[in-house]
Amino acid sequence: MDMMRAAVFVEKGKLELREVPKPTPGPGEALMKVTLTTICGTDVHILKGEYPVKAGLTIGHEPVGRIEALGPGVRGFAVGDRVIVGAITPCGQCRACLSGDGAQCSHGADGFEAMGGWRFGNTINGCQAEYVLVPDAQANLAKIPDGLADEDVILCPDIMSTGFSAVESGGVRIGDSVVVFAQGPIGLSATAGARIAGATLIIAVDSVSRRLEQAKRMGADVVLNFKEQDVVQEIKRLTGDGADVAIEALGTQPTFESCLRSVRPGGVVSSLGVYSGHLNVPLDAFAAGLGDHTIVTTLCPGGKERMRRLMSVIAAKRAPFRELVTHSFPLSEIEAAYDLFAHQRDGVMKVAIRP
Amino acid sequence: MDMMRAAVFVEKGKLELREVPKPTPGPGEALMKVTLTTICGTDVHILKGEYPVKAGLTIGHEPVGRIEALGPGVRGFAVGDRVIVGAITPCGQCRACLSGDGAQCSHGADGFEAMGGWRFGNTINGCQAEYVLVPDAQANLAKIPDGLADEDVILCPDIMSTGFSAVESGGVRIGDSVVVFAQGPIGLSATAGARIAGATLIIAVDSVSRRLEQAKRMGADVVLNFKEQDVVQEIKRLTGDGADVAIEALGTQPTFESCLRSVRPGGVVSSLGVYSGHLNVPLDAFAAGLGDHTIVTTLCPGGKERMRRLMSVIAAKRAPFRELVTHSFPLSEIEAAYDLFAHQRDGVMKVAIRP
Amino acid sequence: MDMMRAAVFVEKGKLELREVPKPTPGPGEALMKVTLTTICGTDVHILKGEYPVKAGLTIGHEPVGRIEALGPGVRGFAVGDRVIVGAITPCGQCRACLSGDGAQCSHGADGFEAMGGWRFGNTINGCQAEYVLVPDAQANLAKIPDGLADEDVILCPDIMSTGFSAVESGGVRIGDSVVVFAQGPIGLSATAGARIAGATLIIAVDSVSRRLEQAKRMGADVVLNFKEQDVVQEIKRLTGDGADVAIEALGTQPTFESCLRSVRPGGVVSSLGVYSGHLNVPLDAFAAGLGDHTIVTTLCPGGKERMRRLMSVIAAKRAPFRELVTHSFPLSEIEAAYDLFAHQRDGVMKVAIRP
Amino acid sequence: MDMMRAAVFVEKGKLELREVPKPTPGPGEALMKVTLTTICGTDVHILKGEYPVKAGLTIGHEPVGRIEALGPGVRGFAVGDRVIVGAITPCGQCRACLSGDGAQCSHGADGFEAMGGWRFGNTINGCQAEYVLVPDAQANLAKIPDGLADEDVILCPDIMSTGFSAVESGGVRIGDSVVVFAQGPIGLSATAGARIAGATLIIAVDSVSRRLEQAKRMGADVVLNFKEQDVVQEIKRLTGDGADVAIEALGTQPTFESCLRSVRPGGVVSSLGVYSGHLNVPLDAFAAGLGDHTIVTTLCPGGKERMRRLMSVIAAKRAPFRELVTHSFPLSEIEAAYDLFAHQRDGVMKVAIRP
Repeated sequence: MDMMRAAVFVEKGKLELREVPKPTPGPGEALMKVTLTTICGTDVHILKGEYPVKAGLTIGHEPVGRIEALGPGVRGFAVGDRVIVGAITPCGQCRACLSGDGAQCSHGADGFEAMGGWRFGNTINGCQAEYVLVPDAQANLAKIPDGLADEDVILCPDIMSTGFSAVESGGVRIGDSVVVFAQGPIGLSATAGARIAGATLIIAVDSVSRRLEQAKRMGADVVLNFKEQDVVQEIKRLTGDGADVAIEALGTQPTFESCLRSVRPGGVVSSLGVYSGHLNVPLDAFAAGLGDHTIVTTLCPGGKERMRRLMSVIAAKRAPFRELVTHSFPLSEIEAAYDLFAHQRDGVMKVAIRP
Repeated sequence: MDMMRAAVFVEKGKLELREVPKPTPGPGEALMKVTLTTICGTDVHILKGEYPVKAGLTIGHEPVGRIEALGPGVRGFAVGDRVIVGAITPCGQCRACLSGDGAQCSHGADGFEAMGGWRFGNTINGCQAEYVLVPDAQANLAKIPDGLADEDVILCPDIMSTGFSAVESGGVRIGDSVVVFAQGPIGLSATAGARIAGATLIIAVDSVSRRLEQAKRMGADVVLNFKEQDVVQEIKRLTGDGADVAIEALGTQPTFESCLRSVRPGGVVSSLGVYSGHLNVPLDAFAAGLGDHTIVTTLCPGGKERMRRLMSVIAAKRAPFRELVTHSFPLSEIEAAYDLFAHQRDGVMKVAIRP
Repeated sequence: MDMMRAAVFVEKGKLELREVPKPTPGPGEALMKVTLTTICGTDVHILKGEYPVKAGLTIGHEPVGRIEALGPGVRGFAVGDRVIVGAITPCGQCRACLSGDGAQCSHGADGFEAMGGWRFGNTINGCQAEYVLVPDAQANLAKIPDGLADEDVILCPDIMSTGFSAVESGGVRIGDSVVVFAQGPIGLSATAGARIAGATLIIAVDSVSRRLEQAKRMGADVVLNFKEQDVVQEIKRLTGDGADVAIEALGTQPTFESCLRSVRPGGVVSSLGVYSGHLNVPLDAFAAGLGDHTIVTTLCPGGKERMRRLMSVIAAKRAPFRELVTHSFPLSEIEAAYDLFAHQRDGVMKVAIRP
Repeated sequence: MDMMRAAVFVEKGKLELREVPKPTPGPGEALMKVTLTTICGTDVHILKGEYPVKAGLTIGHEPVGRIEALGPGVRGFAVGDRVIVGAITPCGQCRACLSGDGAQCSHGADGFEAMGGWRFGNTINGCQAEYVLVPDAQANLAKIPDGLADEDVILCPDIMSTGFSAVESGGVRIGDSVVVFAQGPIGLSATAGARIAGATLIIAVDSVSRRLEQAKRMGADVVLNFKEQDVVQEIKRLTGDGADVAIEALGTQPTFESCLRSVRPGGVVSSLGVYSGHLNVPLDAFAAGLGDHTIVTTLCPGGKERMRRLMSVIAAKRAPFRELVTHSFPLSEIEAAYDLFAHQRDGVMKVAIRP
């Protein structure tokens, strides 16, 4: 049996690079050689035991690489094609997918499964490995356009898709004011997305000056440091009655609440964060339910068409996503990479991992 | 000075029928002779001091009547025209109105005002009176089609408009499953709206059998008594993975929470209730923010085009709204009417008040 | 080799019942035993040579039946399950499908193919046969709910899906006025769809009194015979400035033009017809391009979720579709059925064919 | 009586600068001192007698200026405020406006009027004059943000609003491919709008190299000269199956047809042109009505909120609209300006007229 190296979750706090069997693609599957991947905040949660996965699982959900082998029935692709696959791998054939909500995919069944579209490094082996098996390959293999390097597209599978989805679900349109709370990679991506979608007043909020500077390069018109001023008050001053859309990119009660306080009557809070503890809706900011507010949450959209669109944004040079990849490690040093990323040392944004 | 009788809020717990000056319409206004009006749950909150209005205000926001006089500049109407006016009276000319959100109207200004469209019996004198002054009359006077009696259209200004808006904001479409929590007049109207909008599984929830029976007549396919069974579990059984849309028509933490627990991943909670106390989002039912859920609130849409559409529903006999008007009082007995309505005696749904 | 009987297109004007090989399902496919099917106007066009298909093809695209065999990889279904399949069989995994437009499916490829979703009886063998091979079965097999007979659901695969799509693409909403030109099976289905979607003034136009009577039973509020009056003028009289939406269900210049003349400024012409000859936009009715008009065309949506929704309409008894099946023939007499249907004799609407 | 100078339509081919009475604002109106205006292609059509207006009418519909006087009832504005007003002046209070379609405004009535929102220089006196009377001022006066010069905002009333509306009505979203046929001022504005709305492949088509160069500066990724190549073929090559959206910005049969031939199945033709002669839909490019195509037309949206949004685009420096103003004339030389503009001499794009 062929073997390969993979980053395996062992137990809370412990990740190990192990030799595991190299998979063989079955019907409708593809085997992808991973040439570049990265670490997500979610992976850190898994490592810390805050999000449960089974012991022995290979983690990671952001693969760039090339097709190593194709299972029966996968058409239109060839071994060697350079491809990416989204973090979310919709089947395209279940009730959720056929309803346009592939992130809640039930894998062909007649239903919806909460977060069911997220399989890599969650319910099946992920891509922090030399190879990864791609399910429903026909719907998920996305060819990389000529002229784009691996580093150019590494943020498409999750970061860009998630960040942009906040803008899309929020219904941002030309002339909108948009505030984005938290400027980590996903918040920065939402900031870029707001700019690309036509918002004309984009306010980025964080407390780390380096991130606020990056926010400007991604398209923010104004940056606010919440440690230095009352940001909700300043947002009201800048927008008049509040922003049209507020994006939550952290997953905490204070940022959620600030979002709701920042939007105008009739405004939208578009939420990306993963909440823990509790989530309260402040009734004063909510007009007791009579303010025509919308709160919408979105899980990273996937599928090859989504990836194609995001790569077209990169190819058209609409925003400098490559700047967010601040560090690089070989797969053999992935544990050091986790350590750097988890502790947010050295101004790290995203870490490239090269198998 | 001409005088008229009006139901005036005096202080917490005290409403009085008083002689007050009959108003004269200024530019853009109309004076309406009220021939029928009704009492809303909100009026009861005002009477109890739970929603603050200034002492001396005439309350009530659901007028049916005819045009008594037109102020300068109001075109296309004649004295004597039978009309209704929505509970919400958008100006049509402010930023909110021009953005399609008249319920958050700022009265011509360049902004949005939370609940600003609700003026009758809130920020200006209302219609539990012999006459009511209609602001922005050009945008708000809606002619009653021939063949419809006052009783036919009395629920259009608020009850129908609010109930239907839950269905519209929830994006209900042909083949959806919709659950409506609470079958008071607004919930019953949402039930009817869901039927009229094409939902094919409409589940009405309440604990009062009379209301559940009425819900069936309004269009519910299934009725559930939450005192007799675990309704969330039953909704899951009936729908598979949960309803497409859940409508909250009460304004309490338990009903809000049941809504969120009743919808499928990717589903919508469409909220009409006025919340007090607190509002907590249960994270398990919310997939911690990753379930593609939407929570949307709507305040009763107004304006003459809205009223025209709702009256067309009545004229086309799409639902038996007239059945909801269970009692009738002359204006002189309005205090007795409040007493009956506030205590929900005698199977009361809505009370007709005749000035 | 097992054989079966199938209605095969031989040449222009000639259809033949032949013995052909019974297919075996490959990966992702299913073999369906057909228990009921029907003839579509499109099949008549094929027979007349007006729409080209290759000689030897089995025609028909509206199958009701049960699963005879499942190919590798199809999950969640069992042999014997009662199912229908839509006339359009989207793969769910191509760019078109992942963009929500399965009717223009490119079968897994990275693109769109005009009418590519229509395969049965067009580019692959159809279902006027004892058995039919279902492509992309995971996305297309739709279980029939308990309690519904074959006759109840026979119009779901094409007629209902097409008719309702006019209403959906037209954006019909509560309180709209809708006019439907031509009351054949698809027009009647559009009429029913308009009623189910909340239109409050539904005007059905045809010249055959039997069809106009049926239109009333499907939900029309008003029926107009274009041989007896100027229907555009009457529509204007009934609606004021024109209908919100006009549905074209025939495919001729006069009906298209009447649609455009019947809608108000800002209105929508929702077109289902298959046009031949030419199609001219009358500039006077089009305000020379400045009337905010929309013309939208829709090809019958397919897929199992679509079928599930349509069957839920039937199960909820929202419209009497079964009445449209006016005649019944065994497969052995399909040539007689074509003859009756093509000549519109004996008040035929739709013909049930029983293999 | 105070008099003022105004450019008056006398008869076909004849425009005259005349002394006419300076108007006084009535209820709901405002008098605006015009400090800058421009000439539109439509004005040239009027001058040539191709679009009929009554003799003696002051033409022009793109005013920049300041408030000279306010009629009774206009709130929130002061004499001296710098403002613009859209070419289309919706009342905000009629059925069309309350339905969100102010361009088809019926001026308070219960209906829609084709092109009814276009009043300046069409049904009431326009703004190629020292002063212009603004109807429904509350809905239409839009304050110019500090820091913007008259020249910065002169294209907002019509050119930008029209060009951007093609993008909005076309539903352009992040990652779309958009082709814009004709790069006059409105086409160039559509090109800019496509860029601002997130399209990632914007193809501008014209035959004048100067316009194609300007198109690049407005945001086009690719420019095509239709005299030098088969543009439809090249668009297909660049996009795969065709563009997602094609924008018609000229109003001719060939450009309309090229649009339809350029879009993919399921694509949208968004039309801005004013057609004369005839308009034919080529059935081969239209898949005979089965290609899920949409054809949508849009008349320039107006109102103060629209103007506010467009000026926010200018203030945020999202596109170099000021470059399009290539020439400047005093009002006294407006006839020379018409002559230059009508004959498209000297590379003229838009002409500034200073009263």
